[in-house]
Amino acid sequence: MNNTATILDLIRTKSPLVHNITNYVVMNNTANGLLAIGASPVMAHAIEEVEDIVSISSSLVINMGTLSKKWVESMIMAVKKAKTSGTPFIFDPVGVGASKYRMETAQILIKSATPDVIRGNASEIMALAQLASISKGVDSSMDGQDAVAGGIELSKKLNNTVIISGAIDYIITGDKISTIENGSPLMSKITGMGCTATAIVGACIAVENDMHTAAIAGMGIMGIAGDMAASASKGPGSFQVNFIDALYLLNETTIKAKLKLND
Amino acid sequence: MNNTATILDLIRTKSPLVHNITNYVVMNNTANGLLAIGASPVMAHAIEEVEDIVSISSSLVINMGTLSKKWVESMIMAVKKAKTSGTPFIFDPVGVGASKYRMETAQILIKSATPDVIRGNASEIMALAQLASISKGVDSSMDGQDAVAGGIELSKKLNNTVIISGAIDYIITGDKISTIENGSPLMSKITGMGCTATAIVGACIAVENDMHTAAIAGMGIMGIAGDMAASASKGPGSFQVNFIDALYLLNETTIKAKLKLND
Amino acid sequence: MNNTATILDLIRTKSPLVHNITNYVVMNNTANGLLAIGASPVMAHAIEEVEDIVSISSSLVINMGTLSKKWVESMIMAVKKAKTSGTPFIFDPVGVGASKYRMETAQILIKSATPDVIRGNASEIMALAQLASISKGVDSSMDGQDAVAGGIELSKKLNNTVIISGAIDYIITGDKISTIENGSPLMSKITGMGCTATAIVGACIAVENDMHTAAIAGMGIMGIAGDMAASASKGPGSFQVNFIDALYLLNETTIKAKLKLND
Repeated sequence: MNNTATILDLIRTKSPLVHNITNYVVMNNTANGLLAIGASPVMAHAIEEVEDIVSISSSLVINMGTLSKKWVESMIMAVKKAKTSGTPFIFDPVGVGASKYRMETAQILIKSATPDVIRGNASEIMALAQLASISKGVDSSMDGQDAVAGGIELSKKLNNTVIISGAIDYIITGDKISTIENGSPLMSKITGMGCTATAIVGACIAVENDMHTAAIAGMGIMGIAGDMAASASKGPGSFQVNFIDALYLLNETTIKAKLKLND
Repeated sequence: MNNTATILDLIRTKSPLVHNITNYVVMNNTANGLLAIGASPVMAHAIEEVEDIVSISSSLVINMGTLSKKWVESMIMAVKKAKTSGTPFIFDPVGVGASKYRMETAQILIKSATPDVIRGNASEIMALAQLASISKGVDSSMDGQDAVAGGIELSKKLNNTVIISGAIDYIITGDKISTIENGSPLMSKITGMGCTATAIVGACIAVENDMHTAAIAGMGIMGIAGDMAASASKGPGSFQVNFIDALYLLNETTIKAKLKLND
Repeated sequence: MNNTATILDLIRTKSPLVHNITNYVVMNNTANGLLAIGASPVMAHAIEEVEDIVSISSSLVINMGTLSKKWVESMIMAVKKAKTSGTPFIFDPVGVGASKYRMETAQILIKSATPDVIRGNASEIMALAQLASISKGVDSSMDGQDAVAGGIELSKKLNNTVIISGAIDYIITGDKISTIENGSPLMSKITGMGCTATAIVGACIAVENDMHTAAIAGMGIMGIAGDMAASASKGPGSFQVNFIDALYLLNETTIKAKLKLND
């Protein structure tokens, strides 16, 4: 088996508990994406229980799509707990360039505990790398390649793995860069596909210790399911349905035949 | 007509207002499930209005999937109001064994006002019955039958109806036990199917005074719609779509032909 | 091109950022509806960033479906900022008659800054016009025509545009009344279709300065997509999927052929 197929298989066998502190818009999609690949999602954000839930989970997903004070407190508590309990965690800096508050929150979170993986679009990664600080909402308005230099800088500074998603996905760990060219333009016409990608990488880091390998698997799974769904869809409505079916039906044969990985 | 068909018919005729204080992940599914069977959902959680909304509603659904302090305050206020206004209410103790906070919240809620019906999976019902206190997130990792003893104990202690859902659903009122064997394994691959079951039973108790009969109707409607949807679906994405259609299309003939009730 | 087709074309070309402060139940649908027509949705409600987000957005959508204290504070801050920054905004008074709190909140919001457009069902518009104050939850139990007098009064008092949606949609600006007769009864069997209508009108006011014309375009787009989706659907589950596809596939030809506008 190739690594991606092995990791998907491990997720289906172990059904790891993936703790999500994420935004209101995509919670449902994220949970269904995780269930479709065989993981076991839990959503919990109360300060009273967030440490308990981190401690029984196999990985943690932090997504700042719809921030507020109480949620940021819980996120900080959760990422600190993740570090002490050795729980791998991934951070999704949604719309980080869109407001000062998001920029500050991202910085506080990263200072509280270094994410094992960060996934964003080109604008978000560039904002984080402080090469650029203007973002048009939560969409990417830049080309992935422009952000690669920022991604390398960020990955070296944090000694972690950085994913820049887009038409081409870049997986960056220091000087090591892998690219994936799967996926469909329809994916940008549905809310929360980036967030789902983050959650699926979150499931991969729950079963694979090498973050770069896990990140490739997560983005590969997303992209291939996107390819399969797009070819059967009339628009973003049917795409969404077909995408969840594709995640569920994905297997070793499909992964081997379709993964466009440049490693 | 059998009872389940009669109850569905009453829901469609009366279109009862069902007040939901539920979790962020499933609100949309829950509302759509209720609309599909003909009920009228309202979601309201603000302390400033929760009593007003209970007082105009025909039933109340309390689901603790994504807890926090303010929401718990509203839930307590709502269940107390339900008791004084004679509004039947159902409680879904989502992931009750997963943290101390959830266990405490469930206890406070039950002490504030006894739920007319409780619906959970085997782990949750066992946790509530304090026969077991370990839960793997929000999924059931136990067999329904293991939890039946706990369910009977709980039902007798609270003098109410307890539903244990799973491959076999158990509806327990004291020593009276009914089982339903409809439904599909695909239902565990979509988030919020348990929560939707709770809401649909919530619609049934709005139109039927006998809680055991109402609980059978709700779980029967869920299971039959699940059977119908599964046979037409490729995976959990299409299942979700077909499930809502099936709820909408369900009629007396289908219910009579398909309900696997052991009463 | 007719106005509606021109406006849809402008949305697709400019991809305006539409800021939504809306309810938990429909956030996902609303975002997907906006993406399907080519707009760029952003959801942000924190007091710390709400003004920043308004100032980079082309329009603002305020929906009070699931209220609470903090959210109301943010809504007030957002609408005031919208006025000073010249950002057009639309208000959706969900379930305004259902509780005192909703009635008070609606009044505070309207006093803080007059909405450029208000969209509600007949009960909600009548409640706002204080001709009636009883609402059955969030559904309309009145005929649109009964509310037209209230809508005219409200529009004149506020000097803005009022939309009463239903089997017939009424777009009212002072004494000017236009009607649209597109759409399907299935739309009332899915949660959040009214909220999606509000958001889509929100995208139209981002690209068209004449509020009456923008409101017609938004309601026309909704209704035609509803017609197209209904004819291909078995129930509300498949309707939802087909509706998003229809929004995405809508073009000048379809609009010209199908729009039932009485202007």
